[in-house]
Amino acid sequence: MKKTYLLTPGPTPVPEVVLASFARPLIHHRTPEFQKLFEEVKSALKRFFQTENDVMILASTGTGAMDAVVSNLFSPGDTVLTLNAGKFGERWTEICRAYQANVIEIVVKPGDTISIEQVRIAVKANPTLKAILFQASETSTGVVLPTREICELARTHGLVSICDAITACGVFSLPMDAWGIDVMITGSQKALMLPPGLSFVALSERAWKLEESSRNPHFYFDLRKEKNASAKNQTAWTPATSLIQGLSESLKLIEAEGYEELYARHERLARATRAGVDAIKLKRLGLDCPSPAVTAVWVPKEIVDGKKIVKTLRDRYGIAIAGGQNGLEGKIFRLSHFGYCSEFDVVTALSGLELVLNELGYSVKFGTAVGAALEVFHQATVV
Amino acid sequence: MKKTYLLTPGPTPVPEVVLASFARPLIHHRTPEFQKLFEEVKSALKRFFQTENDVMILASTGTGAMDAVVSNLFSPGDTVLTLNAGKFGERWTEICRAYQANVIEIVVKPGDTISIEQVRIAVKANPTLKAILFQASETSTGVVLPTREICELARTHGLVSICDAITACGVFSLPMDAWGIDVMITGSQKALMLPPGLSFVALSERAWKLEESSRNPHFYFDLRKEKNASAKNQTAWTPATSLIQGLSESLKLIEAEGYEELYARHERLARATRAGVDAIKLKRLGLDCPSPAVTAVWVPKEIVDGKKIVKTLRDRYGIAIAGGQNGLEGKIFRLSHFGYCSEFDVVTALSGLELVLNELGYSVKFGTAVGAALEVFHQATVV
Repeated sequence: MKKTYLLTPGPTPVPEVVLASFARPLIHHRTPEFQKLFEEVKSALKRFFQTENDVMILASTGTGAMDAVVSNLFSPGDTVLTLNAGKFGERWTEICRAYQANVIEIVVKPGDTISIEQVRIAVKANPTLKAILFQASETSTGVVLPTREICELARTHGLVSICDAITACGVFSLPMDAWGIDVMITGSQKALMLPPGLSFVALSERAWKLEESSRNPHFYFDLRKEKNASAKNQTAWTPATSLIQGLSESLKLIEAEGYEELYARHERLARATRAGVDAIKLKRLGLDCPSPAVTAVWVPKEIVDGKKIVKTLRDRYGIAIAGGQNGLEGKIFRLSHFGYCSEFDVVTALSGLELVLNELGYSVKFGTAVGAALEVFHQATVV
Repeated sequence: MKKTYLLTPGPTPVPEVVLASFARPLIHHRTPEFQKLFEEVKSALKRFFQTENDVMILASTGTGAMDAVVSNLFSPGDTVLTLNAGKFGERWTEICRAYQANVIEIVVKPGDTISIEQVRIAVKANPTLKAILFQASETSTGVVLPTREICELARTHGLVSICDAITACGVFSLPMDAWGIDVMITGSQKALMLPPGLSFVALSERAWKLEESSRNPHFYFDLRKEKNASAKNQTAWTPATSLIQGLSESLKLIEAEGYEELYARHERLARATRAGVDAIKLKRLGLDCPSPAVTAVWVPKEIVDGKKIVKTLRDRYGIAIAGGQNGLEGKIFRLSHFGYCSEFDVVTALSGLELVLNELGYSVKFGTAVGAALEVFHQATVV
């Protein structure tokens, strides 16, 4: 009997009632029963995205939705600005280049965010820009970007703002319509607490205008076709029905908690995690711009093989956390705290970390990180 | 308590043990545990495809795999031959045109197959052809195409043969390597008895050669990247893990039955369905080339509103069968008999049909279709 804990920034743990829903017999997708389910889900997704725009459901993971946006909105030679604060920002650059866009890229070092001033300078220097592509939360380094300001700037300059909210939407408030986010994307295995396999994308009227003039080839990812199908409570191609059945359950759980408490809980768990990490004198990435989704931490110099932290937590204690990706492999680890996640998941992560750090040669007085986290929870309760 | 029956050519019913497997907690995809599962599945998929080529797993439905093949193998201006015996043949044409191929298309009327002679004439008339794209089984009309002969012809002329085996692979024997099928595709919600959301594609060495020279843009669907990831028991992007866990269960069920019996069962169920339909004097599509996957039947002239057959079966009896698509809407209906399907599913479909035909004004002596099907099962048992 080895109990396991999934504390990675995707996939996140799937609630038991959602898992159980996958064991239900399948319903056929071209039936009134499915259309009714789809309609309910569609309407709940608008609340999840805080938008009146249609939220389209694709049978792909989040990268598929990113591809869909680039292949449906642009033409070869279009100039776009990508904000690269880590691996997923870099992915925007790669996708835009794959579709032969002329990419202007702002790159910062790991753990730094990109300031609105940097974006403003790039926008002013490039009058032919059509769009700004960025992450609301850069999962690879645990930093947030100034979404609201980026979208305001984009609107002022007639640019389309394209926000990868894959580990942001449903983690903290990103009001698509109120902030003028033109395109917003998310995936199923994040705040929606589902297995991977669905992605979601919503477009503003301004974004649809760009779509009309696009000349990039595409077939499976056809947002116009999806929009038309969605109006009839269908998808363009066969939908991933079982995941959509589960989605309906997830959205019910989210709405039962309420969005205010959902965001407050994520913020509380994030604060507690950061307090725990700080209490044991580890250095976090993104000190002035930490993401409520995931806390990224530098491996202390006392531990030579940084990958051992993740490996030992997994193999000895059954706790799955994320390591660093690409250039950050072995240099950082990441603790996730959103989705189906409670105070005691944070306690579990920090306890496991205290054990493993001591084992690997970084001395920690037991209870220090956990104690600091509990103090945050206590304050949140008694205040 | 309304019991329901899913007898459509996709999604097909998911076995209870597979459904139950979806209720298991998720495992993270970048772990040795997932890699072990992936390796087992990969090896079983090679047997399912009857190939030594890698079978890549994409997080998309079947149309995504079709898109992947066209966007990864061709360049704008390439000349290709598509065989259009129905809606899915037409889809090859649409995808190739979306990627600016020069498409030569053979179109036949609904229910007709495409003869190897027709293909030979087209191949000889078009010396710049690079590939032939076709369906092994055209789901929209229930006909099979001469896969083996098409692939032989392709090889003789140095063309790449691209076989959509979405309702064929695992229904009847399609030995990829032995027949020289260069590209073969399938989807999860067909003979693999899973919900929709995964697609599968394998490429021969000849097909990989074509991929090397392709200039079509693509990102999410990147077969080379998938092949490289697969060698490390991973996928290029986040895999649809829960569906892959279910896939492992499905493949175990298939291998426990054995491929010989699997194909024999499908053939037996198809013969019984055809005998039942013939016994009540309905006309089938594809008389000389019926698919073991699905039997398509013309709505008799006595029934003015053909869509009522599908609707009444569903609403009154809980039996989901497929109607006609596009131009065939209301004109045909389709009975599926593959995947998690037994003698008594055929009996259920034919019984429901006898009831509904009588209700809608086409007189049938009760027991006629069912009796003819049982006679086939009896013969198959005693012989």
